[in-house]
Amino acid sequence: MRTVGLVLEYDGTGFQGWQRLPGKRTVQSVVQEALAAVLGEELSLVGASRTDAGVHATGQVAHFLTNSPIPAEKMPFVLNPVLPPDVRIRGAFEAQAGFNARFSSVGKRYRYSIYAAPQASALWRHRAMHVFLPIDRSRMRAAAEFLVGQHDFSAFRDAGCQSKTTIRTIHQVEVVCRDPFLELVVAGNAFLYHMVRILAGTLVAAGTGKLEAADIPDILARGDRRLAGPTAPACGLVLEEVLYDSAGMIQLGKGRMC
Amino acid sequence: MRTVGLVLEYDGTGFQGWQRLPGKRTVQSVVQEALAAVLGEELSLVGASRTDAGVHATGQVAHFLTNSPIPAEKMPFVLNPVLPPDVRIRGAFEAQAGFNARFSSVGKRYRYSIYAAPQASALWRHRAMHVFLPIDRSRMRAAAEFLVGQHDFSAFRDAGCQSKTTIRTIHQVEVVCRDPFLELVVAGNAFLYHMVRILAGTLVAAGTGKLEAADIPDILARGDRRLAGPTAPACGLVLEEVLYDSAGMIQLGKGRMC
Repeated sequence: MRTVGLVLEYDGTGFQGWQRLPGKRTVQSVVQEALAAVLGEELSLVGASRTDAGVHATGQVAHFLTNSPIPAEKMPFVLNPVLPPDVRIRGAFEAQAGFNARFSSVGKRYRYSIYAAPQASALWRHRAMHVFLPIDRSRMRAAAEFLVGQHDFSAFRDAGCQSKTTIRTIHQVEVVCRDPFLELVVAGNAFLYHMVRILAGTLVAAGTGKLEAADIPDILARGDRRLAGPTAPACGLVLEEVLYDSAGMIQLGKGRMC
Repeated sequence: MRTVGLVLEYDGTGFQGWQRLPGKRTVQSVVQEALAAVLGEELSLVGASRTDAGVHATGQVAHFLTNSPIPAEKMPFVLNPVLPPDVRIRGAFEAQAGFNARFSSVGKRYRYSIYAAPQASALWRHRAMHVFLPIDRSRMRAAAEFLVGQHDFSAFRDAGCQSKTTIRTIHQVEVVCRDPFLELVVAGNAFLYHMVRILAGTLVAAGTGKLEAADIPDILARGDRRLAGPTAPACGLVLEEVLYDSAGMIQLGKGRMC
């Protein structure tokens, strides 16, 4: 059995998230069925991140075990023609035995897009959160600084979270201004349920004056979900990169893949 | 009667273009019907550009005559709630008597987006042309230079063009690289039927080696449509700005509107 890794892009608008669910159109189901049809074998596709309904990805990683002789570099060319156009295989790689897209991952990077203008956008309606109130970027940046580092993120997970520990390390929360867009680049070792969207909602609350940056340490310390900002809409979120530490194993998003 | 101008954004994917057509979902029809319903009067909406099916806009301009007392700055707030989310009124302005969105215009600026990568994009499938062949930007730029200026663009219009003269002035053809995107920014005084899309198809042909930059003067001189490149797909095109020369009359796309 070989282990093959895939790097996937998808438009989350038409999917009920990543995870296979009976009767639902999910990314895992659609890709797994296409793989089974093309390779002529039953298999199970394991994704690095179980993205929510409506969340997008440009760098989701998944792996599967196969007896197929088709080389990894041919996978995008045999799979893409049978996949619907809202999901694409960007690249594929031969992985070492034991590689697991989810458990081998050491981190993830997300981008959350905000469209800041008095009226909503037609072109970005499925790709960004609309904020019509004026946003102060310096207030967002001040709040973001308090989130970087290792913390107990109990206040930043929604009901239904199944993680045993709530300690996570955030490596980066960058506020990028591309008028009329604000983009939040968030990287960390792992994330709780809805954590990136709650971080985004909290930073928007800070930027629009509903919350003070200096409140963040207290919110973290008290661990009460009700003190953080609202869960920002799924459509603004893109999973951009899954990080692995064996540098030679995968070259992701560097234009180096097949 | 007052003359009111609107600046519109739309996602062209779900529209059969701008122009009203019986039984078709067009931008003009949808907006005109919303206006008639909200203002309680029959009216006619005149757009600066009759964009094709699938073409997008962030800066389409249109005008209408009205007896309504609703001030222009309120128009986005009364219209957007009754419009479908794939078209938005970005702003509105009181225009001088005699202002005509189409005939008062002195130019337009478009952006054509190319997604240059081995595999197509899921997220950009309705917003960019996919080119899987390697593209040489310097070849595109060399070809673009020959297109700037006043020329007879007979070779750059498709059958069905109703323009009396084929002389047009192109002010700018810029090739912007935002890896993995290439964007063509094209500004000119006016454009023939499919002209921007044929310019884009011709520049892609130059960039991929199917045509030489030095062929452009000959293509212009001979005026034969078959010598230019193919008409690039509608989905890559965005109408970004309509230009008017009475500077005080409208401030477009400068964040100055209501």
